[in-house]
Amino acid sequence: MSGTESVKIVIVGGVAGGASAATRARRCNENAEIVLFEKDEYVSFANCGLPYYIGGEITERSKLLVATPELFQNRFNIDVRAKHLVQSIDVENKTVSVLNQATGEAFTETWDRLILSPGAAPIVPPLPGIDAQNVFTLRNLNDTDAIKEYIEQHHCQRAVVVGAGFIGLEMVEQLHHLKMQTDLVELQAQVLPPLDPEMAQLIQNELTAHDVKMHLGTALEKVNVENDTAVGVELGNGTTIETDLIILGIGVAPATGLAKEAGLEIGKFGGISVNEFMQTSQPEVYAVGDAVEYMHGVLMQPLRIPLAGPANRAGRIAGQHAATGSADPMMSPVGTAIVRVFGLTAAMTGLNKKFAEKAARANRSVIVVPKHHAGYYPGAESLFLKLTYDPETERVLGAQAVGKAGVDKRIDVIATALKFRASIRDLAGLDLAYAPPFGSAKDPVHIAAFVAGNDLDGFASIVEVDAELDEYQILDVRTDKEVENFSFPNIIHIPVDELRQRLSELDPQKPIVTVCHTALRAYIATRILKQSGFKDVRNLTGGMLMQRYARPERFE
Amino acid sequence: MSGTESVKIVIVGGVAGGASAATRARRCNENAEIVLFEKDEYVSFANCGLPYYIGGEITERSKLLVATPELFQNRFNIDVRAKHLVQSIDVENKTVSVLNQATGEAFTETWDRLILSPGAAPIVPPLPGIDAQNVFTLRNLNDTDAIKEYIEQHHCQRAVVVGAGFIGLEMVEQLHHLKMQTDLVELQAQVLPPLDPEMAQLIQNELTAHDVKMHLGTALEKVNVENDTAVGVELGNGTTIETDLIILGIGVAPATGLAKEAGLEIGKFGGISVNEFMQTSQPEVYAVGDAVEYMHGVLMQPLRIPLAGPANRAGRIAGQHAATGSADPMMSPVGTAIVRVFGLTAAMTGLNKKFAEKAARANRSVIVVPKHHAGYYPGAESLFLKLTYDPETERVLGAQAVGKAGVDKRIDVIATALKFRASIRDLAGLDLAYAPPFGSAKDPVHIAAFVAGNDLDGFASIVEVDAELDEYQILDVRTDKEVENFSFPNIIHIPVDELRQRLSELDPQKPIVTVCHTALRAYIATRILKQSGFKDVRNLTGGMLMQRYARPERFE
Repeated sequence: MSGTESVKIVIVGGVAGGASAATRARRCNENAEIVLFEKDEYVSFANCGLPYYIGGEITERSKLLVATPELFQNRFNIDVRAKHLVQSIDVENKTVSVLNQATGEAFTETWDRLILSPGAAPIVPPLPGIDAQNVFTLRNLNDTDAIKEYIEQHHCQRAVVVGAGFIGLEMVEQLHHLKMQTDLVELQAQVLPPLDPEMAQLIQNELTAHDVKMHLGTALEKVNVENDTAVGVELGNGTTIETDLIILGIGVAPATGLAKEAGLEIGKFGGISVNEFMQTSQPEVYAVGDAVEYMHGVLMQPLRIPLAGPANRAGRIAGQHAATGSADPMMSPVGTAIVRVFGLTAAMTGLNKKFAEKAARANRSVIVVPKHHAGYYPGAESLFLKLTYDPETERVLGAQAVGKAGVDKRIDVIATALKFRASIRDLAGLDLAYAPPFGSAKDPVHIAAFVAGNDLDGFASIVEVDAELDEYQILDVRTDKEVENFSFPNIIHIPVDELRQRLSELDPQKPIVTVCHTALRAYIATRILKQSGFKDVRNLTGGMLMQRYARPERFE
Repeated sequence: MSGTESVKIVIVGGVAGGASAATRARRCNENAEIVLFEKDEYVSFANCGLPYYIGGEITERSKLLVATPELFQNRFNIDVRAKHLVQSIDVENKTVSVLNQATGEAFTETWDRLILSPGAAPIVPPLPGIDAQNVFTLRNLNDTDAIKEYIEQHHCQRAVVVGAGFIGLEMVEQLHHLKMQTDLVELQAQVLPPLDPEMAQLIQNELTAHDVKMHLGTALEKVNVENDTAVGVELGNGTTIETDLIILGIGVAPATGLAKEAGLEIGKFGGISVNEFMQTSQPEVYAVGDAVEYMHGVLMQPLRIPLAGPANRAGRIAGQHAATGSADPMMSPVGTAIVRVFGLTAAMTGLNKKFAEKAARANRSVIVVPKHHAGYYPGAESLFLKLTYDPETERVLGAQAVGKAGVDKRIDVIATALKFRASIRDLAGLDLAYAPPFGSAKDPVHIAAFVAGNDLDGFASIVEVDAELDEYQILDVRTDKEVENFSFPNIIHIPVDELRQRLSELDPQKPIVTVCHTALRAYIATRILKQSGFKDVRNLTGGMLMQRYARPERFE
């Protein structure tokens, strides 16, 4: 099919993926007839900006409207029909049945190519009281308006946010901007499940520092309602919280109803199955966005990755392929994501340790805590970087970072490396931009890769942050003062600069784990010991600093 | 050679590369004897921090001393000898002759492995008056102290900085912090020669906005001196500038005297030749840092890359190889660098267009100017990103970026991609971290790659920013108001949203170049025209915005 052939493309869903598909289709094919149906009132709005408008960081509502139906019409000659619900798909006859929700009129629309971008719907658990007027989910601009209006009209002082994923955390931050006392409820024992627990603990500390009360490892069981208004929640652990407002950010379920009814193939994780051109099991029907399963670039198996970046790129590919019959294939996403939580940023790419374990992938993880730029230049902030790799292939599997600055850059560098199936050695040799305000001659990415390389070579093997230490002599090489400040009760304490003279204080028959504040001096100690006849010496990755987040009970 | 074999390693030069080599060698080999000679007073100081200490951003001098001789001794058992000048190398007998500059004593030191990290010396042109007491170069802590002391003691109000490279620009910025009126002299017609001219113009505007007076395309010819004190300079263009202080940042020459006398092979560009383990033509002699030629990762030929990052990584490799006989090979640097100039940051990696031309590499360059994070989120700043690629292989050759925020991240992502010989298609599919405070679902890196891909496919071919436009009809698709504000005199003006209705106003026989503000609407116009029977339609990359920097004369 050439780019100027007449073809009728119908798109279902007008936000990220659908809007990208529509405009790319037009640019590819001026003669295509392009109709976009959106069930809600608005198309092409800034989905990811909604929490920031509620919190007042984004002050103009109009800024959330990326493109209006008029722009679609005038610039792109795309027929946008908001408030139109597509009710069913007839694949054989190439039609959709549509309900105009404004007029109640139902009609049938034909298509040559169909692009589904239905997104995912927020999960609402069927609990008592969940239907109260002030229990909200946040998916679109109408939800946003409703939340904002409710808070203002009722002068809300207190909120409960259920779910500590990306949207939950963004909402907690923004409700705090509105000076509301916020409680955060999460079924898992940590916030932000895409992080490993000790990395999440950094975010939890930040939440506590901003008076957010967390209820982790417990479920919402009931909403207490008076006059159709939620006044409190009851949790599985017996806690009751009074509140003026409830936001559900529990997760999303792919909106696959239409696709299922049309007989399109559904993947193992409940998303619509697609190939690299975003074609479904019916090649003239495409699907993109939160409703599909993408091939995950590390696991190399289909997975739901409900994020805006892949949705936009997939939309562009589907739009081009539908309009012309060819396109560059979709590059496998790796789950790169980021969230700001007050003064901290958390970001991740690829597999974390939990995920690698679940996928039964051989894995090791180092944690380093260097400064985000040259330590001698003002404003250097600690960057917590966890790098997970396959000890057999030496391949990078993923990374997580938390810090006040420079987090996004390091995760994007590692996300880029993941695309090329980089090894730890590759990361160690990257030529990154350095001047004191921006980084260090040895960047945090290099340092993490050096530590991993030393581990792989057995040059300085690590002990992971959550490992048991019972079998080891714990050699703490910090200064006297540091040890006084906080320490495990059962350490052998020899400052690193005295180690060469005091080797006799260690038992050469028993394995040794070395520790210091962040593991740099402990690494030097490891090397001294290994070369002085101590056979089994390892370095506790992340040092005492990370133990406070990973295993605080050890200090008792 | 095993890691615990006794070996005597002598290192010449104790800053970035030398210090890295020494400590890595110790960690690799506890039994090695390691001696480090440094001709100056200080070892392991923060070279890149010197301008910021002069300008008062770094307030504590002690912060510049990364590691003291005591630390080297106590922690690493390394014998550091400052003020020791190595005068010659005897490769055959494996000795160096050394002068203790403190005592005047000369002696001979033996070695099994020798690591040269002599650095590069600032170029001082042999001009009249250049030896005056207040003409300075900036290489080490003594220079720094001298400049700082001179400015304070003489209450300097005016400075001339000669050379607009990294150090020159950093000094200009820091002298401005000290409220000195600064003139900047540069032989080339632009500042920051690693940038293409129109990108450099952005920096030039920033300098002008901070009252820095530039004298471009002219040479320093003479220093006017009274009482051994420079009071002014005379330039090749006839300009005379009065001054209280002169800083020379003209460039550096590799300190290869020792290496040459010892008969080590010298490369085409005057640096010491080394292999991937940093071995010179004498395999037991290593060299690292600003004095060597590294294999350039894009050109794949040896080149001098006098930057701190490669020096530190090379030092680590040389230290390990000298101590153990093996190491991971040096990864080819690609010239990634960054500099802050007041409110702007400029960074680059790989080849710019000028360099690609000089190297006779087929090349094309697109310029995009998206926001550094979501446009609807407060604080979005324009990011100027130029991406250079090979139109035959589709390989990325390099990138340059200038902006107020997010510059370092995009250049580091592309630097990482360069390591893996990425194509434009690879960049377009990267899975980068997105939330509104950090980026956009379509990141500036994606957008640049999309534009390049459209060019490669002939989908929307570009015209480069500095190309001649005489053969084209120039179709300006901006709004009436934008055109009124500034425009070429000879345009055809049709707003993009009216284009489909006004095609008859264009001559189908004559090539068309489309323009708008940054080239997004012009791209849409290009697609409309190409599909409406206009055969030769191209898009002026970077739009009118970049024309103001690249070809301001066109607006006259």
